[in-house]
Amino acid sequence: MDAVSVPFTTDDYRARMKGAAQAAAAEGLDGLLVTPGPDLLWLTGYQPTAITERLTLLVLREDAEPQLLVPILERPDAESAAGAGAVTITDWRDGTDPYTAATPLLRSDGEYAISDSAWAMHLLGLQARAPKTRYSSVTERLPMLRAVKDPAELARLEAAGAAADATFREIVKVPFVGRKETDVAADLARLLREFGHEQVDFTVVGSGPNGANPHHEAGDRTILAGDMVVLDFGGLMHGYGSDTTRTVCVGEPTAEMREVHDVVRAAQQTAFEAVRPGIACQEVDRVARRVITEAGYGDEFIHRTGHGIGMTTHEPPYMVEGEWRPTVPGMCFSIEPGIYLAGRFGVRIEDIVTVTEDGGRRFNDTDHGLTIVE
Amino acid sequence: MDAVSVPFTTDDYRARMKGAAQAAAAEGLDGLLVTPGPDLLWLTGYQPTAITERLTLLVLREDAEPQLLVPILERPDAESAAGAGAVTITDWRDGTDPYTAATPLLRSDGEYAISDSAWAMHLLGLQARAPKTRYSSVTERLPMLRAVKDPAELARLEAAGAAADATFREIVKVPFVGRKETDVAADLARLLREFGHEQVDFTVVGSGPNGANPHHEAGDRTILAGDMVVLDFGGLMHGYGSDTTRTVCVGEPTAEMREVHDVVRAAQQTAFEAVRPGIACQEVDRVARRVITEAGYGDEFIHRTGHGIGMTTHEPPYMVEGEWRPTVPGMCFSIEPGIYLAGRFGVRIEDIVTVTEDGGRRFNDTDHGLTIVE
Repeated sequence: MDAVSVPFTTDDYRARMKGAAQAAAAEGLDGLLVTPGPDLLWLTGYQPTAITERLTLLVLREDAEPQLLVPILERPDAESAAGAGAVTITDWRDGTDPYTAATPLLRSDGEYAISDSAWAMHLLGLQARAPKTRYSSVTERLPMLRAVKDPAELARLEAAGAAADATFREIVKVPFVGRKETDVAADLARLLREFGHEQVDFTVVGSGPNGANPHHEAGDRTILAGDMVVLDFGGLMHGYGSDTTRTVCVGEPTAEMREVHDVVRAAQQTAFEAVRPGIACQEVDRVARRVITEAGYGDEFIHRTGHGIGMTTHEPPYMVEGEWRPTVPGMCFSIEPGIYLAGRFGVRIEDIVTVTEDGGRRFNDTDHGLTIVE
Repeated sequence: MDAVSVPFTTDDYRARMKGAAQAAAAEGLDGLLVTPGPDLLWLTGYQPTAITERLTLLVLREDAEPQLLVPILERPDAESAAGAGAVTITDWRDGTDPYTAATPLLRSDGEYAISDSAWAMHLLGLQARAPKTRYSSVTERLPMLRAVKDPAELARLEAAGAAADATFREIVKVPFVGRKETDVAADLARLLREFGHEQVDFTVVGSGPNGANPHHEAGDRTILAGDMVVLDFGGLMHGYGSDTTRTVCVGEPTAEMREVHDVVRAAQQTAFEAVRPGIACQEVDRVARRVITEAGYGDEFIHRTGHGIGMTTHEPPYMVEGEWRPTVPGMCFSIEPGIYLAGRFGVRIEDIVTVTEDGGRRFNDTDHGLTIVE
């Protein structure tokens, strides 16, 4: 079996849960409350088939064994998770109050971190039934919970990055001119799967003016000769994410297109070279932003420089002004500066980078030059 | 253009937003806070490409025009939504605090209903920046916000139900014995798309003992002669949901299988016949449960009898003990009693039903008898 497909074990999950409970205690919290999503999957290997209005709640405390409360009809699924052997599972039944079932697992005046994406309905239910409890989001109090990846996780992220790079090397060979953005997006999705992704999360094809909208996905626009095209794609492979962006030109670029591309490339490279253990996350953003601002495009760089990646393609740490926390070896995040000229075109270049003792290491290494496609 | 594919207009969205603000005021609330998901889509036609950690918030108040706060990089997408003409859009930028941008849209001591699935992180952010504001979930205070469907919505739900029925009529012709559950599930997904679904949400194939786990999806188990097989499938068509279940038998059923199937069928039929305007939702559950309990299987009916359906395949109103609110013409929900014999087999029969002035009307009408497949 490939190293990246060796499953995590009950002991792996037990260690993660113990570490998380200790981190919560070190932060002065009474524990950590985890609802379905990437935190729960990372801590227990359990992912319900759907995230619904029915409460599922993992309670981690340093002074008690892990407890997982589930709807009774989802109990068999929960029991079959790889980490189930390291938690005590209890259940509640439709027609009863799940918060009444949950509050005995909490200290009545305890302070807890709760999953960012826990449903407000569930948080309000806990606040109502246990009015002296207090809550913060995981990102506010324990933002680095999943941020530092272990070697098995790094191997998965590296493999996902290599598959995304293989996708880019093929996509530049497909015809662009005269086809719709959605056609090229379908090619990207097909290639990601061919190169091993089990899930495709996004396939942005932003041609011409659509490239100036950083969250444009892919639309009906027919790609024209002379277009700049932003290609931003990624998904999950062996449960870990890829996310890379290159901007290509359909035929010959104008001098302005080359100039903007050069600025973004320099910003990406300069920010990459700034990565080393101990640098504040916001410093990565500042370095990239300074290059773009000095070139006169500061107002056209309308998003942060990067985001963490792991079991999701968007998670802490964020490379953004205000994130003062230091980078640590094993952290993985995107560096993706961009310039967006409204109504005309956009340029973005994005690699996933991990922090090593010596500096940054890229998980994407396709050419940063402006590739010409047909 | 088909009636079910006529898009909703800015005026439709304006009317929905106005009605929602009035409903909130009638409930004694200062307004309604809506984050991405089905509430936002229903109220504005806007659905961000992904639901992320970046705050998007619609604020509806009876005393003010609708306001939509979005991340600046998603502004172009928000502006292109059909309901955008009926809201004032403001934005916030990465590196600034979105809650500081949101609180001026609220009364500093106001009481609000907030989307059930709003991220806890966002609710905590609002609670921290505006400590005198108070919150409840939409389901707690305004559970019937989207529950009563208008004629255009009913037409979509009816069309989705007909497509699911067409899927069932074809699936019973495919081979079952010797194939894996996942093979039959793939057939279900293909058929739903062939009959017009743009999204497949679930394709449960629970054969033999797997049928006794109501949340089992479809696995590697090879279907055997003599198996009961629960088929529960649905998704979205023209933006509205289907969800139907039939249990089939691979070859001849045993007397016990027939008996259990007859009990579930009687429970489903009796509950359906109980539907009329003004009946409490929990009464639909009680009627179905009574039939099953009197037959001696009460402990094996481990879930509520039904859930609402609309732009999602799971939403209020819930047919569950404790839901005292009355049904109203135009409400649409599932009636899906089941019996689960652990380690052996399960039976569930599910139709979508709408409430009319005269009683219930089914959107699924395939045979309730025990179909034999090969």
